[in-house]
Amino acid sequence: MTSTGGMPNSFDMNQADLLDPELAELVTRRSRVLGAGYRLFYDEPVQVVRGEGVHLFDELGRDYLDAYNNVPCVGHCHPYVANAIATQARTLNTNTRYLDARILDYSERLLATHGNGLTNVMYTCTGSEATDLALRIARYATGAEGIVVTSNAYHGVTAAAAAVSPSLGSGSPLGEDVRTVSAPALGASAEEVGARLAADVRAAIDDLAQQGIRFAAFLADSIFSSDGLCPDPAGFLRPVGEVVRSAGGLYIADEVQSGFARTGEAMWGYQRHGLHPDLVTMGKPMGNGIPIAAVAMRPQLVEEFGREVRYFNTFGGNSVSIAAATAVLDVIETDALMENALSVGGFVRDGLADLSVGRSYLEGVRGAGLYLGVDLVDPDTQQPDGELARRIVNDLRRRRVLISATGPEGHTLKIRPPLPFSREDGDRLLGELEQVLLAVDAGRPAARGSR
Amino acid sequence: MTSTGGMPNSFDMNQADLLDPELAELVTRRSRVLGAGYRLFYDEPVQVVRGEGVHLFDELGRDYLDAYNNVPCVGHCHPYVANAIATQARTLNTNTRYLDARILDYSERLLATHGNGLTNVMYTCTGSEATDLALRIARYATGAEGIVVTSNAYHGVTAAAAAVSPSLGSGSPLGEDVRTVSAPALGASAEEVGARLAADVRAAIDDLAQQGIRFAAFLADSIFSSDGLCPDPAGFLRPVGEVVRSAGGLYIADEVQSGFARTGEAMWGYQRHGLHPDLVTMGKPMGNGIPIAAVAMRPQLVEEFGREVRYFNTFGGNSVSIAAATAVLDVIETDALMENALSVGGFVRDGLADLSVGRSYLEGVRGAGLYLGVDLVDPDTQQPDGELARRIVNDLRRRRVLISATGPEGHTLKIRPPLPFSREDGDRLLGELEQVLLAVDAGRPAARGSR
Repeated sequence: MTSTGGMPNSFDMNQADLLDPELAELVTRRSRVLGAGYRLFYDEPVQVVRGEGVHLFDELGRDYLDAYNNVPCVGHCHPYVANAIATQARTLNTNTRYLDARILDYSERLLATHGNGLTNVMYTCTGSEATDLALRIARYATGAEGIVVTSNAYHGVTAAAAAVSPSLGSGSPLGEDVRTVSAPALGASAEEVGARLAADVRAAIDDLAQQGIRFAAFLADSIFSSDGLCPDPAGFLRPVGEVVRSAGGLYIADEVQSGFARTGEAMWGYQRHGLHPDLVTMGKPMGNGIPIAAVAMRPQLVEEFGREVRYFNTFGGNSVSIAAATAVLDVIETDALMENALSVGGFVRDGLADLSVGRSYLEGVRGAGLYLGVDLVDPDTQQPDGELARRIVNDLRRRRVLISATGPEGHTLKIRPPLPFSREDGDRLLGELEQVLLAVDAGRPAARGSR
Repeated sequence: MTSTGGMPNSFDMNQADLLDPELAELVTRRSRVLGAGYRLFYDEPVQVVRGEGVHLFDELGRDYLDAYNNVPCVGHCHPYVANAIATQARTLNTNTRYLDARILDYSERLLATHGNGLTNVMYTCTGSEATDLALRIARYATGAEGIVVTSNAYHGVTAAAAAVSPSLGSGSPLGEDVRTVSAPALGASAEEVGARLAADVRAAIDDLAQQGIRFAAFLADSIFSSDGLCPDPAGFLRPVGEVVRSAGGLYIADEVQSGFARTGEAMWGYQRHGLHPDLVTMGKPMGNGIPIAAVAMRPQLVEEFGREVRYFNTFGGNSVSIAAATAVLDVIETDALMENALSVGGFVRDGLADLSVGRSYLEGVRGAGLYLGVDLVDPDTQQPDGELARRIVNDLRRRRVLISATGPEGHTLKIRPPLPFSREDGDRLLGELEQVLLAVDAGRPAARGSR
């Protein structure tokens, strides 16, 4: 796994010779110019030329069902959003040093989806920058440095964000003021999961204190994507919120993954848990691919920070990105994409549950809305089977269905399509997955027998 | 100055009552939603609805001559670039986990403008992220932490970038492993300026060493924008490069301000100095307003970092940003904007020199291409006069000519228009500036007499 740097589902450059010559040349050229830091997905990298809705198309016109990408949340190249971008790019694109009511209209609309006393927003271009800014504000407001995250969390790639992202691995060490807690347990009650997580966070805060580090904030992705997807039972985050507050710290909800209607049950993942965060970071789907991200927060947090610490993000909240973000909210509402995520997400989850019946290597079907996961395990030992997950992801890719894998062992299938994913799309995904699983079954004669 | 946080030319919220009621309401609403961190330009903030070439237009159709914005480097809403954005946004917008030759075509073209052994490039969305990544790579490659910057440098707003940006002021303290050196002196020979800067950097490296901090990199904006603009004499950076290398450190050239043909003499500011940097950061003008930035570097620097440290920037180098950046390079070439910057820049500089004759409060006309500056000083004491600079900037704004101020005392007029700025545009700028200066003269009867 060395040559893929521990990232699930990444192409291994040592296998470039196995590709067809044209692809091999492109991959080699890419490695030469962009360097080893740039990883591709899949054993056979995907090269596409067009996107529309939940589909990507290669140069031969073959369609790939995209059951993975959350950035194009309202669908690839959605015409309404693309038109908004085109019109704005032809009209005006300035920064926030100039006065423009549209960023205020958008901000008020965005903040209204939060409520909860989150009445201020600041714009960045990426989720990494949003994490970085939220950490700066939290540390400034508390005068403390200690941060607690989950054990395989991912929050970004600026130096400060990488220092709170254990999923990046040993090449990117955690900060000395960072502590980790185990990801929420699967399969227990909200009370049990919540109590354990709260106790772990309490212990981490105490550990920081013992080393003279005051606690600033708990930071968590509200759906725990890189920890392997822990959506349920909704409500388990509330006790953590209380522990954080009683320790004088702040709760930062990372909604880069779970935000913008993805979970089907609420606009924001933290809302499913009945949680009241102090800061919220938003990113990826916000502009359907145009770089825009943000931090929403309580007004007290930004008052002194904003006055004393100059923060200006040249592209953050510029005219084109606000136009794109506004159009995204329009489409989420008019196309009822939250409701679709709930309905189709439930349909696909049921289908996954059906497929897992009698397959003892496939378990832990879970999800919220259109963020779904299922684990691959060794049927005998119940140990994670990342290699099998990798095989399934690549077999699906050969059938032109795009998903990926996640979790510390890379053994969780990660299904996270654009939100307009339909039941028909779900049928195609499930049908192709069944074919792939049948081939897996064929190599494991006992597998179906254990039902 | 407290309420403007030390930023030159920022609107003071305490003056909101002086605006017309509609503007005052918008400004107040903005402050409520975006918070105190968001500063506006000018005593009377500018509200525009359309941009074209070097002009911005308000809702009454009045044109403002933009002699300030470098982000729309090929002109506001350039149709060729806007079309490239529109077409790409309607066709495909994916990230670098998928294979696409266009990012390679662009990268090779961009790197060819550098030469110099800089054969690798990595993409981010903002200059701040580029600084942050360059620092991560430099520290990883050297295994050292110490960074040296100039005393009023600005390199970005991520936590790590802010820690090397003294211009942000005391609210945003420098890192403990950061040392500053005085900005390059004005008015001396390249040998003298270079020798002093090199000696200062040498002393800063020694100071780091005395406190047990090994030297990683010297980081400098090649035109020293926030230090007050120090373009000449070209060549003074070479001795610093030698000191840096002999100390085992890396030279990071920040080309966010001086890059992309701005200086008229070269594509990159460091090239004017005959310097060979190890890493180069690029940003603002790169996509004419679409968020894209990058770090170019020697291949050795990214080899191990890329293998061991996962770095993926979701929006960095996505299809739309690469389409925009490609179109920007096309326009710079086809419209000969580097040549225009040199020619018109020289014309405006000559005009500024003419205006300074006999005005003892106006001195130090300088610039490279279309990045020009001139200082406002007290004629008797020669001390910086930031208040006068502020008055001139605002008087020009009332005449619908947009410039700003820079430097540690905010006393340097900052003239940095989009690159298609013509001689006619220069005539308008100089003509309006003359009117403003005549009004200043009228309040200082002795001023013109001292010639």
